[in-house]
Amino acid sequence: MEVSIDAIGNVVGLWCGGKTDRSLPPVMTGSHIDTVKSGGRFDGNLGVLAGLEVIKVIKEQNISTKHPIAVSFFTGEEGSRFAPDMLGSLVYVGGLDLETALSTISVDGKRLGSELEAIGYNGTAPCPGTTPKIFLELHIEQGPILESEGIDIGAVENVQGISWTELTIKGQSNHAGTTPMRMRRDAGYVAAKISTFVRDLSNEMGGTQAGTVGKIDLVPNLVNVVSSKATMTVDLRNTSELMLQEAENRLAIFCEGIASQEDVEITRKSLARFEPVEFNHQLVDQVFVTAQNLGYSTKRMTSGAGHDAQMLSRVCPAAMIFVPSKDGLSHNPAEFTSIEEVAAGANVLLHLIVDAAEEYR
Amino acid sequence: MEVSIDAIGNVVGLWCGGKTDRSLPPVMTGSHIDTVKSGGRFDGNLGVLAGLEVIKVIKEQNISTKHPIAVSFFTGEEGSRFAPDMLGSLVYVGGLDLETALSTISVDGKRLGSELEAIGYNGTAPCPGTTPKIFLELHIEQGPILESEGIDIGAVENVQGISWTELTIKGQSNHAGTTPMRMRRDAGYVAAKISTFVRDLSNEMGGTQAGTVGKIDLVPNLVNVVSSKATMTVDLRNTSELMLQEAENRLAIFCEGIASQEDVEITRKSLARFEPVEFNHQLVDQVFVTAQNLGYSTKRMTSGAGHDAQMLSRVCPAAMIFVPSKDGLSHNPAEFTSIEEVAAGANVLLHLIVDAAEEYR
Repeated sequence: MEVSIDAIGNVVGLWCGGKTDRSLPPVMTGSHIDTVKSGGRFDGNLGVLAGLEVIKVIKEQNISTKHPIAVSFFTGEEGSRFAPDMLGSLVYVGGLDLETALSTISVDGKRLGSELEAIGYNGTAPCPGTTPKIFLELHIEQGPILESEGIDIGAVENVQGISWTELTIKGQSNHAGTTPMRMRRDAGYVAAKISTFVRDLSNEMGGTQAGTVGKIDLVPNLVNVVSSKATMTVDLRNTSELMLQEAENRLAIFCEGIASQEDVEITRKSLARFEPVEFNHQLVDQVFVTAQNLGYSTKRMTSGAGHDAQMLSRVCPAAMIFVPSKDGLSHNPAEFTSIEEVAAGANVLLHLIVDAAEEYR
Repeated sequence: MEVSIDAIGNVVGLWCGGKTDRSLPPVMTGSHIDTVKSGGRFDGNLGVLAGLEVIKVIKEQNISTKHPIAVSFFTGEEGSRFAPDMLGSLVYVGGLDLETALSTISVDGKRLGSELEAIGYNGTAPCPGTTPKIFLELHIEQGPILESEGIDIGAVENVQGISWTELTIKGQSNHAGTTPMRMRRDAGYVAAKISTFVRDLSNEMGGTQAGTVGKIDLVPNLVNVVSSKATMTVDLRNTSELMLQEAENRLAIFCEGIASQEDVEITRKSLARFEPVEFNHQLVDQVFVTAQNLGYSTKRMTSGAGHDAQMLSRVCPAAMIFVPSKDGLSHNPAEFTSIEEVAAGANVLLHLIVDAAEEYR
């Protein structure tokens, strides 16, 4: 394959057979190879390795296609170190300008551009990148639905909208033994109240509403000191943009109320905000039908997680193929999908790619 | 002064005048010089520096006493790095054996004995140390009472009991977008629920009951991952042992309930547990009367914080002198007591020490 690296570290491997027309847009598949700190082996990597496996099969079987085929992996999909998540694919499609992206500062205080230079992944391919004919992404579900319903393949028709907010709460540090309860301005207590509110809000709104406080950092974080400061994140998701805004508004109102009640100052910063995404209907249908034709049980479904495919869907028809996650586990070292389940997903991907790339028969 | 360092790093400076009988137990004053991470300049240091100032005055004024006078500072009073708090004075009075104390592991994974060696404070003086005739400690109040009531000197008659518990909550890490709310085993959410419970419990019990969650550490502590683990501390205080036990019991029951409800595992570890302490009544009266005779407004009061004096009270008559804290602030860089307030406290300390050491007139 012809491998290129662009200025934000996205890697694209291009496959052209002897009869391929290089002037045509490539059929692209891919995903990401970064993980969260406590991640598993399948999230992201599956889609990249399956793409390479597809190329291997095409080569071995001497399949010849009209369109080039591209396998890509995009920088910083998880957003664990550099926010927002899906940063590489966002830059690839022109949704974020390169300079802003390179200037992003990581949670450990490093500049993305400098970190890319340090590992030699500040490439020369242009950003935004080539617009593909279509984009397909094979991914583990990262949730319990396919497994619990005994379904082989998920044809992903949409993605939940994502809203990440960082809240900084400023109170007053004081001695835990000598400060009467009524005189406290405890940033840690306020963080805890917001955390339980996020759960209550999600339960009350129901539907696809999800809410998570995954990160809380107290200052000075000591057993006998009332916290002067708390930094926390709130992750809200919904398939409906209207409902997602409703959740955001109710969080903001709650923060105002508790800040006033507990005499603390709360500042908000948006870390990431993506509206819900609808994938290309025709391509989703093709995923569904191809899986059915290959004998797999199939289901149309929503993705609760964000994926690079939703960024690519801004510039070309895009869709996703889901395979089951054991016990619904992901972002966890115990993440697992069997070889048979992986093979089913890769097989659907192969057929879709060969069709889209217009095989010479 | 003759300075000795004992095996746990406690430092004692001994002052003997020409007519002092070295065979008699010393009158001891002192405090600690360690601070919390975000501490101020007065907590602990005031009592040590005031003790040295007392010796300076005694020397300058050629005051001669029958008993030696000792000024000490004790290792690790705050417990910020090595639990329990008041560790040095606890070892000094024989309340914790030396080997156990030296084997204590810090929050950053270091052994106390090795850290003392590294700074040359693994001394040769024996532990437990010499039993003083009496022990007096001058300290800032660290609370708002003296200032708000316009009182110069607090004669501390008792200390709240302290119960520090570390809770470790084990849930399951999972993807924040794809895991339905009802299927979560979110250790961070449970930590937040416990934190708000501790506040509610303290408010409901009222009286001197205080409750603080000052430390919460989530794992993996990422915006888009449901926490697999949370470690947190609970600091409970009450002047009544019975009420303190009540608070501990109610916390334990709440933890059992929420663990079952949220399908997480909660383990508890006691980091420190001290019963409420009554200081020597006669000595407290002497503090009160001495302050009054010197023209200061005075008040009998409770200490909400633990102090080295409560450890010394196990082996000799002990009491404390409080001076006001501006805005009640402590464990905070803004901690402040004016030079006049400090001088009043040191003056009371001087007169009490000279009396107890039996001045030759």
